Amino acid sequence: MTVKLTVVYTQPEDPEAFDKHYMEVHAPIVQRWPGIQRIELARVSGGPMGSPSPYHWIADLYFADEAALNQALGSPEGAEAAKDFGNIAASGSFMTVSTLVE
Amino acid sequence: MTVKLTVVYTQPEDPEAFDKHYMEVHAPIVQRWPGIQRIELARVSGGPMGSPSPYHWIADLYFADEAALNQALGSPEGAEAAKDFGNIAASGSFMTVSTLVE
Repeated sequence: MTVKLTVVYTQPEDPEAFDKHYMEVHAPIVQRWPGIQRIELARVSGGPMGSPSPYHWIADLYFADEAALNQALGSPEGAEAAKDFGNIAASGSFMTVSTLVE
Repeated sequence: MTVKLTVVYTQPEDPEAFDKHYMEVHAPIVQRWPGIQRIELARVSGGPMGSPSPYHWIADLYFADEAALNQALGSPEGAEAAKDFGNIAASGSFMTVSTLVE
């Protein structure tokens, strides 16, 4: 079983500053999360066929199971990332927890 | 470069019927898309730490680049999936196109 925390960020005021902050500050915090297995980061270019999208950035953070994810969220590194999320996530940004379907 | 089409479905009226339809009808259509490299399906259990989520299902469909994705969307199999999406996607479901950050 693999569980992922998907973090979807809406368009920030300054996309270039967001990307720089994510890569230089936020990602290094998440990389220190206990139990994290894989991080997949993606920059949104729009909706399908060039339509607009309110979103800018998607982070998929993979764990063995929901207990491992919750342990990471409850760790000091999890709190550090949550605080930084509050600094960088524009209104409408959201997170989901999901289990991969084999 | 890898591009993914992320399809996020909101809670359907009947989640069990949705899952069965997705696996037995929708996924087999998407598997026939030209140029598709990988499909990752995930069932949403909620938001972080057991909070509620308006979402139910996330499909990540991976392509070599945006041209390959657009070719798939414009193919007969793409039209077939779009029609079926209209049947199964509850209000608030959405798609994004994003490029993986290496």
